[in-house]
Amino acid sequence: SNVKKIAVIAGDGIGPEVVAEAEKVLKVTEEVFGYKFETEHALFGGIAIDQRGTPLPEDTLEICRSADAVLLGAVGGPQWDNNPKELRPETGLLGIRKALGLFSNLRPAVVFDCLKDASTLKPEVLEGTDLMVVRELTGGIYFGEKLRRQGEFGEEAVDTCVYNVVEIERIVRQAFEIAQKRRKKLASVDKANVLETSRLWREVVNKLAPEYPDVELEHVLVDNCAMQLLRRPSSFDVIVTENMFGDILSDEAAMLTGSIGMLASASMGEGSYGLYEPVHGSAPDIAGQGLANPIATILSLALMFRLTFGYEDAAAAIEAAVAEVLDAGHRTSDIAVDKSKAISTTEMGNLIAAAI
Amino acid sequence: SNVKKIAVIAGDGIGPEVVAEAEKVLKVTEEVFGYKFETEHALFGGIAIDQRGTPLPEDTLEICRSADAVLLGAVGGPQWDNNPKELRPETGLLGIRKALGLFSNLRPAVVFDCLKDASTLKPEVLEGTDLMVVRELTGGIYFGEKLRRQGEFGEEAVDTCVYNVVEIERIVRQAFEIAQKRRKKLASVDKANVLETSRLWREVVNKLAPEYPDVELEHVLVDNCAMQLLRRPSSFDVIVTENMFGDILSDEAAMLTGSIGMLASASMGEGSYGLYEPVHGSAPDIAGQGLANPIATILSLALMFRLTFGYEDAAAAIEAAVAEVLDAGHRTSDIAVDKSKAISTTEMGNLIAAAI
Ligand SMILES: CC(C)[C@H](C(=O)O)[C@@H](O)C(=O)O
Ligand SMILES: CC(C)[C@H](C(=O)O)[C@@H](O)C(=O)O
Repeated sequence: SNVKKIAVIAGDGIGPEVVAEAEKVLKVTEEVFGYKFETEHALFGGIAIDQRGTPLPEDTLEICRSADAVLLGAVGGPQWDNNPKELRPETGLLGIRKALGLFSNLRPAVVFDCLKDASTLKPEVLEGTDLMVVRELTGGIYFGEKLRRQGEFGEEAVDTCVYNVVEIERIVRQAFEIAQKRRKKLASVDKANVLETSRLWREVVNKLAPEYPDVELEHVLVDNCAMQLLRRPSSFDVIVTENMFGDILSDEAAMLTGSIGMLASASMGEGSYGLYEPVHGSAPDIAGQGLANPIATILSLALMFRLTFGYEDAAAAIEAAVAEVLDAGHRTSDIAVDKSKAISTTEMGNLIAAAI
Repeated sequence: SNVKKIAVIAGDGIGPEVVAEAEKVLKVTEEVFGYKFETEHALFGGIAIDQRGTPLPEDTLEICRSADAVLLGAVGGPQWDNNPKELRPETGLLGIRKALGLFSNLRPAVVFDCLKDASTLKPEVLEGTDLMVVRELTGGIYFGEKLRRQGEFGEEAVDTCVYNVVEIERIVRQAFEIAQKRRKKLASVDKANVLETSRLWREVVNKLAPEYPDVELEHVLVDNCAMQLLRRPSSFDVIVTENMFGDILSDEAAMLTGSIGMLASASMGEGSYGLYEPVHGSAPDIAGQGLANPIATILSLALMFRLTFGYEDAAAAIEAAVAEVLDAGHRTSDIAVDKSKAISTTEMGNLIAAAI
């Protein structure tokens, strides 16, 4: 049908506030571009633990499965940090990724003009930085067998990292394709001098590379990548890597832009199905005070329009509206130089909606 | 006996050149302080592959075992990169760590005044950065079982990460003790929200913490640590973590100081036994040209004097000599602003030896 279904998960902390602004923007894009959306809200994370005794209720999964895409605010908070594993928001996050088959996490790390001074890197080093980390999201040591046992030297713990060729191939292909639409450079990150999974990873990458002759490929060891991101961030275009390395490197990359509060992300499954969320967390310290910046969530919505629905016009319009509002000098307190002039979460949402 | 035995491994690339300068410094400290050393050279790495068909010959291990400490230059180079696993320098490195029981890698990351502009971080962010990464070196996913097998979806690879309480306890105790001698802050890095080995790690850290009440402890998730190193490097004192995370974070920490070419490291075993090496690699591109900077290797020797032999006077004298020579404006080409005024590897070694 022409009506696209979006599952909306507000989550915890500032999640509900930022998601509300993204929904405003959703309404306005409907009116301006004539697209039709149906939204359904679902409980997830800490609030689901409190209200339903599990971070990922079955009906939430059903709502997500019957939708074309998911918009997620943020989950987590200190009140659930000491819960047993099954009652922690992170467990819900890992569960939803696996259940929805979201095998690919796309984390664009770009520098916003108004935030370039917020980076701890020198401006001349940061200049031109615009990279995308493509992280494998449903395999590796995150999902391999885990156990405790008594060994020769007392208690021991085991985690298992497993990858098969199919898992590697689908994420690597996606990374090559993304690189083809960007600056045609791909860095594949592994630890092939130590890990067997990395050696298999590298073999698959090398096997696929001839199919993408227009993409310049380099293999980078993960320790070296952690260094090179600092030394020459602007030289990277697309970085593809496995789950654990991607967790570390995508956060390092996001932080070095200085713009972490404004970054969007997408977790993609088969076809064009995707879950979209801001990179920032649930920020419980400022929740409910109208201080949160809704831009990363609004840009996550733009990413949904582009990647899941192919509504490039609406995606571009949202991005342009965000740029326009920032250019006009409007700032939420997290990015305001003069905090006394900062506007609220809803004011920022209204301005962006109006600018579309 | 009063004579200390040092196994000297020159290795590959610039290894022999920088080690030769450290040996000069060794001689001079003998004369000045009256200590007695006996050195024995051993083959290791690429050169051992070429000459002996294995990166870690048995007699090299014997020489190391019969010594009180090991000084290592650097190993590796492109000519061995495509060799099968058993014929690669890295395999020798992992082998020597395991064989000598070097379970603890100490990587101080400090900023050298003459290099503070070399960092890509803003000077005001870097100000005061002086941290030490304590990395577990003989356990975890590096040494767990590895295999290939046919699975449901074709070929798959497996790596296993194992830690027992004894392995965790000895490295964590060492980190607490190091912190006690420094600024009394310890950040224990893990991924306890996902990994079973990390949960065991955190339990052990929490169990030991009451024995070190003067040390302020924080638990940091590895992805967050990769970010915080960038955002607030000077707030860290000692960071302790498992093998794989330590590999990534110690390189990130070293790079952000901008002084990576000058950093020393120690890999410690039981008691005071240790292997000392510069953090920089074998730099095959500049090998044999007298361009290499011997300072990191000379400072690794100073670390040996301090940590293995307890010769604090000699260690301090070497460090003071390095500072004096740098203060006088002498630079090898890697750290020279005006390359035409750069001095050679041997000139730098001579100046430092003379300054002691
Ligand atoms: C909360 C945690 C399980 C999660 C991860 O490690 O994947 C988070 O760090 C992320 O990157 O989304
Ligand atoms: C060469 C490699 C096996 C080694 C490691 O990963 O330990 C290196 O990166 C290091 O940190 O000493």
